[in-house]
Amino acid sequence: MSDAASRPIGVFDSGIGGLTVVAELMRQLPGEEIVYFGDTARLPYGPKSEDTVKQFAVQDTEFLLSHGVKIVVVACNTASSVAVDDLTRRYDLPVTGVIAPGALAAVSSTLIGKVGVIGTEGTIASHAYRREIGKLDRDIEILEMSCPLFVPLAEEGWTDREVTLVIAHEYLTPLRDAGIDVVVLGCTHYPILKGTIGKVFGPSVKLIDSAEETAREVAERLSSLGLARGPGAPPEHRFFVSDVPHRFREQAERFLGAPLPNVSLVTVDELATP
Amino acid sequence: MSDAASRPIGVFDSGIGGLTVVAELMRQLPGEEIVYFGDTARLPYGPKSEDTVKQFAVQDTEFLLSHGVKIVVVACNTASSVAVDDLTRRYDLPVTGVIAPGALAAVSSTLIGKVGVIGTEGTIASHAYRREIGKLDRDIEILEMSCPLFVPLAEEGWTDREVTLVIAHEYLTPLRDAGIDVVVLGCTHYPILKGTIGKVFGPSVKLIDSAEETAREVAERLSSLGLARGPGAPPEHRFFVSDVPHRFREQAERFLGAPLPNVSLVTVDELATP
Repeated sequence: MSDAASRPIGVFDSGIGGLTVVAELMRQLPGEEIVYFGDTARLPYGPKSEDTVKQFAVQDTEFLLSHGVKIVVVACNTASSVAVDDLTRRYDLPVTGVIAPGALAAVSSTLIGKVGVIGTEGTIASHAYRREIGKLDRDIEILEMSCPLFVPLAEEGWTDREVTLVIAHEYLTPLRDAGIDVVVLGCTHYPILKGTIGKVFGPSVKLIDSAEETAREVAERLSSLGLARGPGAPPEHRFFVSDVPHRFREQAERFLGAPLPNVSLVTVDELATP
Repeated sequence: MSDAASRPIGVFDSGIGGLTVVAELMRQLPGEEIVYFGDTARLPYGPKSEDTVKQFAVQDTEFLLSHGVKIVVVACNTASSVAVDDLTRRYDLPVTGVIAPGALAAVSSTLIGKVGVIGTEGTIASHAYRREIGKLDRDIEILEMSCPLFVPLAEEGWTDREVTLVIAHEYLTPLRDAGIDVVVLGCTHYPILKGTIGKVFGPSVKLIDSAEETAREVAERLSSLGLARGPGAPPEHRFFVSDVPHRFREQAERFLGAPLPNVSLVTVDELATP
């Protein structure tokens, strides 16, 4: 195993949603070490402008680089939609977002060429999935819908409440009635609401979980670049956040699907713009 | 009129919620000029830690001071609950938060000595209203409830939807059943949801709108300090934000209750910590 291969995978997100990607990385790549940075002091990125999100993404990446990561995973749909190309140009290491893997899975899965995409206002307004799916197959019809209440509902832990189902119907019925057969969960929070979202669409619509697809993409890139970590000591993951919000631990565990290890605090002032 | 009196009122908030306070200032003090700063790049402050919010509040205040304001209004419950004392010590000008005026109104209004307080998780966890009400009358019984979905519902503009009423019942029924006769709307977003909140509590519970109470407090302080602006040219308000989020104009107008004047952008990098 090369020195480079023994280095950790770096993952950042605006907050804790990216922990659904970490959970999938841990499941699919159990030997890899992960350094996670959640920019909880400045979350959410969703409603913020492109320039602001780009600036934050550079600062988040610099932080991960200071921990010697071998690949950067942008585990945030908003940042992926506006900053992955920029980061790829700027840094000499692989950068993976969550958009391209989700788009690829959608294109492979649709049988009728009619795909739904749901996400935050920022992601939907950026049309990042539309662009990415269009690159792969320009004949696919794409219907987009922003669902601003899904993130707070997921963070509140109201995953199985009746009111969440009512809100899901409100947002998703137009997509369902349009006859899509695949829907991309274009926000790292949404896997938490998969059950409710699935109830609205029914079994004939396939849900694409971008956390799963992203972890698969990371595994492939590491393998093809000779950067997959070989056997060795069990990995010691490290988690950093720029703030420890109320109920952070409880919410984070819900997203990670496992008890949260120790978390270290990084102040916003320590996040330098190069 | 002294030079000092002709200077503007400074108002800051984590985002646009503070515009409900601006609307009240404009109504109660139509001759005063207002400089507003909304820290939309880093909103919301609600779920963030005390130290982070204190640091942001100092930066926001410094920005207003650079525009020569005569009083600083912290039009954000989270920042009011943790930073007003700190700002008052640090700066040589009057600083008013939204907590003390709301607490005073609650104490004056309750007939049975049983008061409800609703707000974001940050405000409720800080027990700022409990502390402030306790200072005025230690015999008052206080029931607190955080309502994390109210802010996104207000920003989504879902003020009159059935689902909003269902969520309001979920949060507020325990308070109503406990027999309070006054409830403090401890978040600048909540006046937007007054109708729905009032439906849950019914006519026997008085709703305290902290925007209204804060504007009254500002009027009194300016008058007693000889800082009230005399007759002159009509005021020219100025609005600054640290980011222009999607749907900003539409949401801001809903909070201000009037078309939004020109808004200038201030980048986070320009916000210096002294």
